[in-house]
Amino acid sequence: MRDPVRTIFWKGSCVYVLDQRALPARTLFIRCAEYRQVGETIRNMALRGAPLIGCAAAYAMALAALQFSATLRPHKSPGKESRAAAEFIKHMAEARNVLISARPTAVHLSLILDRMLGRARNLAQAVPFDAGKSWKALKSEAERVVREDIQSNLDLSRHGAKLLPHGAQIITYCNAGALATGGWGTALGVVRQAFKIGKLKKAFACETRPYLQGSRLTLWELMQNKIPCALITDNMAGYLMGREKIHAIIVGADRIARNGDTANKIGTFTLAALARYHRVPFYVAAATSTIDMKLAGGKDIPIEQRSPKEVVEINGRRIAPRNAQALHPAFDVTPHALITAFITEKGILHPPFKRAQTS
Amino acid sequence: MRDPVRTIFWKGSCVYVLDQRALPARTLFIRCAEYRQVGETIRNMALRGAPLIGCAAAYAMALAALQFSATLRPHKSPGKESRAAAEFIKHMAEARNVLISARPTAVHLSLILDRMLGRARNLAQAVPFDAGKSWKALKSEAERVVREDIQSNLDLSRHGAKLLPHGAQIITYCNAGALATGGWGTALGVVRQAFKIGKLKKAFACETRPYLQGSRLTLWELMQNKIPCALITDNMAGYLMGREKIHAIIVGADRIARNGDTANKIGTFTLAALARYHRVPFYVAAATSTIDMKLAGGKDIPIEQRSPKEVVEINGRRIAPRNAQALHPAFDVTPHALITAFITEKGILHPPFKRAQTS
Repeated sequence: MRDPVRTIFWKGSCVYVLDQRALPARTLFIRCAEYRQVGETIRNMALRGAPLIGCAAAYAMALAALQFSATLRPHKSPGKESRAAAEFIKHMAEARNVLISARPTAVHLSLILDRMLGRARNLAQAVPFDAGKSWKALKSEAERVVREDIQSNLDLSRHGAKLLPHGAQIITYCNAGALATGGWGTALGVVRQAFKIGKLKKAFACETRPYLQGSRLTLWELMQNKIPCALITDNMAGYLMGREKIHAIIVGADRIARNGDTANKIGTFTLAALARYHRVPFYVAAATSTIDMKLAGGKDIPIEQRSPKEVVEINGRRIAPRNAQALHPAFDVTPHALITAFITEKGILHPPFKRAQTS
Repeated sequence: MRDPVRTIFWKGSCVYVLDQRALPARTLFIRCAEYRQVGETIRNMALRGAPLIGCAAAYAMALAALQFSATLRPHKSPGKESRAAAEFIKHMAEARNVLISARPTAVHLSLILDRMLGRARNLAQAVPFDAGKSWKALKSEAERVVREDIQSNLDLSRHGAKLLPHGAQIITYCNAGALATGGWGTALGVVRQAFKIGKLKKAFACETRPYLQGSRLTLWELMQNKIPCALITDNMAGYLMGREKIHAIIVGADRIARNGDTANKIGTFTLAALARYHRVPFYVAAATSTIDMKLAGGKDIPIEQRSPKEVVEINGRRIAPRNAQALHPAFDVTPHALITAFITEKGILHPPFKRAQTS
C-alpha cells in the first residue's frame, strides 16, 4: 500500500502545510515563515483535523521560537541573558494564545500548545539561556509530537480492525485520515488497517457538508491507496443502513467529555442516531488525548460557529438567494449513550472514563 | 402576501415550464410545443415535485391531443372519423406511456395520466369525433387539475396550521411549496398558512443534497414572501432539534403506501428518525391522491436511482476525485411508525388508511 500523503513538514526555516482546500483538484503547499501564518492555515481550514491541528501547532511553536531567536542580538552579560529568557517565555506564551484561538473546539490543540510551552519554559531555565538551541529543541519536540501521533494512529487502527468482521462495509464521516493526523489516520486508519488485513469489502464516505471533507478528502485519500469506496451525500446514510448490510460506522472526534459525550464534525450525531435506529455499531476512533477529563459532559463543550457564507456558497458560487440567512455550527455533540465503544491507542474503551485509563 | 410564482402555464399552442434548475439566479421558462418536451422537463428536473409533475403531465396530455389534431387532415366520411378516434386513443395511450416513465416513484403522475387518458377515451366516443374539440376539452381538464391541486393545497394548509402553536419554529425539507405544486404548496403551504395567521416564528430549510432544492428553491420561495427563514445543511437538523425549540418537522410526499410508509426525497427518513429521538412531531403534508392503496407497505415502492454525476458535481464543477464511485438513490422510505400524522386536504389522518378515507 502506498504511503499516505504528507500533510505538514519543516524545511529550511519554514513550515509547509498541504492546502487541503485545493484537493482533490490540486496538491498545493502553503509556506509559513511565521507562526501566525500556521495559525491562519488552521483558521482558514487549509489544514484541519484535531490531531493534525496539534501537529501544526507544535511546529508553529517551534517556528515562534525560531522567530524569537532571529530577532535576538548577540549578548554576553548574564543580566541580559535572563531578560532574554523572560522575553522568550513571554513571546512563547503569546504564540500559544494566538494559536489556541484558531479552533476553540479541539482539546488536542490546547494540550499540544501546553506541552510545547512547558518545554519552552524548561529551555528558558537553562544557564546560560540559548535561543538558538531552544528553537532546535522545540523543533525536535514538534517532530516527536508527529511521530507519537502516527504511532498512536497505528495502535488504535489495529485495535479497531479487530472489531470488524470479514467482508466489512463501513460508513465513515468527514475526514479522520492521514489528512487529519500526522499520518495514517484514526477512523480512516481503522478502515486502512481493515483493508490491509483483507477484512474490508467497502468504505462509504459521507460527503460532509458544508466543507465536503468526505468527497474532497476522504475519497481522494482512499482512492490514492486503491481502497474500495463510494461517495454518498450525508442524507443517504440512513437509506444505506436500511438497504445494505453495514457493519460499522466509524468516526473521529474533536473533543470527548469524561462521560463519553463526543464533539465531532456537524452531522456526526445524526449518523449516531441513525445507527441506533438500525442497530449498527457506532464507534469513535480517537487518541485518548482527545478525552478532556476537565469536562463532565457534552453541554460544556464549546461549539464553534463558523461563517454562514460557507453554507450559502460552494466553490465560491452561491447556491442560495442573495441575503439568505444561514446557520453554521461546525460541530455537534453525540451523547455517549449512542456510542458503542471508543477505539483508542490503548485499546477499546467504554465511558465513563477514569483518570487511570487515560494517563 | 405576494402571490407565489407561476410554475407552469399554457399560452397559444405551447406549455411554458419554469426552469427550476436556474433558480435562484435566474427566472427562465422552457417553451414546450410537444408533449415529449414536457416529459423531458420532468426527467431533467427542470420541473419537480409530485403535484406539479401531475399538473405538467395533464398539460402534456392536452398538448399531445393538440399535436394529434394538428396532424389530422379534414375528412367527412363516418368511417374515417372512427379511424381517427381509434388513432387518437392510440396516440394518447402512447403519450401516457412516454410520460409515466419520466419519474417512476411519483404515484400522482400515473393517477393524472389515467384521468386524462380516461377523459380522452370519452371524447373519442363522441359522434362525430372532433379532434379540435377534444384537445380543447383536455386543456380545460388540465386547467381543472391545476385548480383542484391549488384548492387541495389550501385546504390541507389550513388543517396543518391548526396543529402548530403560536411562535412555531418549523424544519422543512426539499421543496414542497408553490414550486412543487400547481401553486401554494403542501408542506410549505402549511408554513405559508402559519405565517399568514401570525403563528410562525421561523422556518428552517434543509438544503437537500444533492439537488439543493432547499437552498435554491425553498429559501427563494420563502424570501419572495418575506417569511422568516434560515438555511441549514441537512446534517445540521439534529443539532438544531437539540439546541433550539423546534415545534414540528413538516415534509411532503411522493408516494404513500396503505400502511402509511412514505416515499419522499432522500434524507426524509433521516429527519424522521431524528425527530423521534428528540420527540419532535413529524408531519407528512400531502394530498390524499398521494396515497397508493395498491401498495401494502414501503418495501413495494420503487426507488428511482439517478446519475452519480449529480452527487460528484455541483453547478457543473467536480467536488470529488475523478472516477470516484457514488450512489444516488433519489428517494427513501420513512416507516409509518416514525410519522406523527398526515396532513391532507380532508383533514388530519392516521394510518393504516382505508379505502373510504381516500375516495
